[in-house]
Amino acid sequence: MASAPQITAPETILSELSAIVGEDKLRTDQDTLHSHGRDWTKAHEPAPLAVVFPRTTEEVQAVVKLANALHFAIVPSGGRTGLSGGAVAASGEVVVSFDYMNHISDFNPVDRTVVCQAGVITETLQTFAEEHGLYYPVDFASAGSSQIGGNISTNAGGIKVLRWGMTRDWVAGLKVVTGAGEILELNRGLLKNNAGYDLRQLFVGAEGTLGLITEATMQLTRQPSNLTAFVLGVENFDGIMKLFNRFQSEMDLTAFEFFSEQALQKVVAHSGLQRPFESTCPYYALLEFECLNDEVAEQAMALFEACVEEGWVLDGVMSQSIEQLKNLWRLREDISETISQWTPYKNDISTIISRVPDFLEAVENLVNAEYPDFEIIWFGHIGDGNLHLNILKPDNLDKTDFFEKCGKVSIGVFEIVQRYQGSVSAEHGVGLLKKQYLGYSRSAEEVALMRQIKQVFDPNGVMNPGKIFD
Amino acid sequence: MASAPQITAPETILSELSAIVGEDKLRTDQDTLHSHGRDWTKAHEPAPLAVVFPRTTEEVQAVVKLANALHFAIVPSGGRTGLSGGAVAASGEVVVSFDYMNHISDFNPVDRTVVCQAGVITETLQTFAEEHGLYYPVDFASAGSSQIGGNISTNAGGIKVLRWGMTRDWVAGLKVVTGAGEILELNRGLLKNNAGYDLRQLFVGAEGTLGLITEATMQLTRQPSNLTAFVLGVENFDGIMKLFNRFQSEMDLTAFEFFSEQALQKVVAHSGLQRPFESTCPYYALLEFECLNDEVAEQAMALFEACVEEGWVLDGVMSQSIEQLKNLWRLREDISETISQWTPYKNDISTIISRVPDFLEAVENLVNAEYPDFEIIWFGHIGDGNLHLNILKPDNLDKTDFFEKCGKVSIGVFEIVQRYQGSVSAEHGVGLLKKQYLGYSRSAEEVALMRQIKQVFDPNGVMNPGKIFD
Repeated sequence: MASAPQITAPETILSELSAIVGEDKLRTDQDTLHSHGRDWTKAHEPAPLAVVFPRTTEEVQAVVKLANALHFAIVPSGGRTGLSGGAVAASGEVVVSFDYMNHISDFNPVDRTVVCQAGVITETLQTFAEEHGLYYPVDFASAGSSQIGGNISTNAGGIKVLRWGMTRDWVAGLKVVTGAGEILELNRGLLKNNAGYDLRQLFVGAEGTLGLITEATMQLTRQPSNLTAFVLGVENFDGIMKLFNRFQSEMDLTAFEFFSEQALQKVVAHSGLQRPFESTCPYYALLEFECLNDEVAEQAMALFEACVEEGWVLDGVMSQSIEQLKNLWRLREDISETISQWTPYKNDISTIISRVPDFLEAVENLVNAEYPDFEIIWFGHIGDGNLHLNILKPDNLDKTDFFEKCGKVSIGVFEIVQRYQGSVSAEHGVGLLKKQYLGYSRSAEEVALMRQIKQVFDPNGVMNPGKIFD
Repeated sequence: MASAPQITAPETILSELSAIVGEDKLRTDQDTLHSHGRDWTKAHEPAPLAVVFPRTTEEVQAVVKLANALHFAIVPSGGRTGLSGGAVAASGEVVVSFDYMNHISDFNPVDRTVVCQAGVITETLQTFAEEHGLYYPVDFASAGSSQIGGNISTNAGGIKVLRWGMTRDWVAGLKVVTGAGEILELNRGLLKNNAGYDLRQLFVGAEGTLGLITEATMQLTRQPSNLTAFVLGVENFDGIMKLFNRFQSEMDLTAFEFFSEQALQKVVAHSGLQRPFESTCPYYALLEFECLNDEVAEQAMALFEACVEEGWVLDGVMSQSIEQLKNLWRLREDISETISQWTPYKNDISTIISRVPDFLEAVENLVNAEYPDFEIIWFGHIGDGNLHLNILKPDNLDKTDFFEKCGKVSIGVFEIVQRYQGSVSAEHGVGLLKKQYLGYSRSAEEVALMRQIKQVFDPNGVMNPGKIFD
């Protein structure tokens, strides 16, 4: 679907938008166009026509109806922490920002649900839940600025997926404005509802291409007790998998992450954090569990010792306090921010867990063979089969050359993804950056069906055109 | 969408079908037409043209392509335990039965996934999981004959939804043949995959109106430890909800069910089971949890005693063995079979949990006022907000008159469902029986979108026409 042709004079669009949201909620200054015209991907120059800040679902609906009438394209904008360019407005679109729709409008302690406007910050919801003795378990490094609407539109994952699933699993209801300008109230918080197709599921992960999410009923759960983490040093990937299987078969893990020695070195140098222990190991696993009582603590220690005896684990440490837990997590969570100074080329790929070791080896061999000079930083969510492959730009290489070379490597990486029946985007979404690679994960028939589904919800193609597919 | 017109001579259809599945897998005898032309709902007389028993996805695909070419309608047929008429073939359709596609073709212990053909019986999967030290948690009374493909097509729920969710949550991958005859392999077992719209979700709960599920990759989980149940007698619904909130806030419950004294009396008389304790109470709650260690057992007993002290619980019993656990569960699980001799008119309605007491009272008042002579049997999944309202046919009332009267009451019930923003079908699906009431749960815009989505996957309307919507 091509970008909707802009046949209306910009002044007309702007004056009509102003009539809907009010003069003070329509911005065309360069700073706002620049800040709200893109996400964390910096590959495209933002160039929207305007940014509007609606305050109600009805205002959003009026903007969408106007887009249909005047033929302009809309780009939804949340916390702008996306990594696939899903919120990039580079060709005169109208950006709809949810910054002013950031209220928690209802809380139901019996149902454990919270009604959030789309612009509620993830961390705000997490804190709100905590203050009410409950827990919102979806968590990731950008929780301090990402918004619920964006989380849902990208089906955000993160560091606790192993135990608590993706954002999809916590959406009990959605209020949306379709691309055609209809307001739908989907599922209204019900736990069981088999009355026809579950349209809510389509909006989760649609990256704003079907419509705009204006409000969500989010499910909360009980707070975990005494979360405790191990960081374990391991020799090789085979050891990581054995470790994972052993722990997973005997305990309920809440997380199982991994990172490489290179990643650790960079984080320690950047943050001033201590290394977890003295030994240097090729890889590290971070695993977390609820240490409910002494019995569980003993069981965890026994498992750890068994893994050392097997030779799978070289060294390890277990957190003894919340402070230590936080510091161990920072060794993993600070990686992204730390390596951002090297302008990393990021891949977010997955396969089924049992294929991860072979898959990782194949990718590593490819990158080492093609570009032996590139430094590779691996980390990711092993428990979910999701690896983040980060290629760092050498200082002496120009940015454009670097990205061009990485793009060529990407083809090889995605051929491996295809061979292992994996995903070219495990949790970041497709947006602009991955759409040319969609075919490595989805068949031509599937993509054709996606286009037709978009046509159903967004017949004039006004909603985030050019994202996911052309 | 109307039934596809049958403009081809039946003999041509039959001979072409025979060429695809083989003569022995095409049946037109009255017994098979009758048995495979309907589900557990007995409201419609089965009258299919034929029943075919394909053995592979490719044979299914050939049948669907033939349906498109020769303009006949297909009705999918699984274990035929549905309660909404989703598998009824009453007007010359070709029934596609999965009875011969009942193999478990792969098991991956690391990923904890099982690849099942659509015709695998639910209980077969449960047993397979158990034999491999794992657990398939979706469970309900008809698990001994329902099939995985049918479970997925109706997003089956059951008695463990509170802890383990619906069938949707356990579908890691699907192989389907769309109404247009394309084979899609959706998600292929990945835990994380945000590469475009998750089409898998559309096929879950679509009741065979978009295509045929031929194979599913099902997720397993670890076995629960030492499941233990309380049956508690309570005075009124208010007490049940207080009990639920109290337990739920301090323990991880695996089930929270309820049933009425009338239901209990009928089950005890029918089965010869013992009453749980001597006292007679208006309602009973069955709650289950993993009794992981002595600490949990003590906690549960303390909670029970606190609830007695509060006056919410009148009497109670806790299972001390697997045998006792099973017998307590039978008090709840045998209700459906027990009351079937009274030709019950079944409703499967839900609202959010916090509204359940008011909702139940409103429905009860309505039915008591309109038809004081009808006996009502309540039971259901309180922890999910899902109530089963069963109206028993008085002996002296003719079946047709009874169903007509119930149909009129239904309008009133569904008006209450609408007022409480609930679902007209919490877990049974819409099929034929609920489609006229779909509008009480879904807006006209939503239904219009569903029709268009069906059009995308099934452009000639050959897949289970007339189910969910006309």
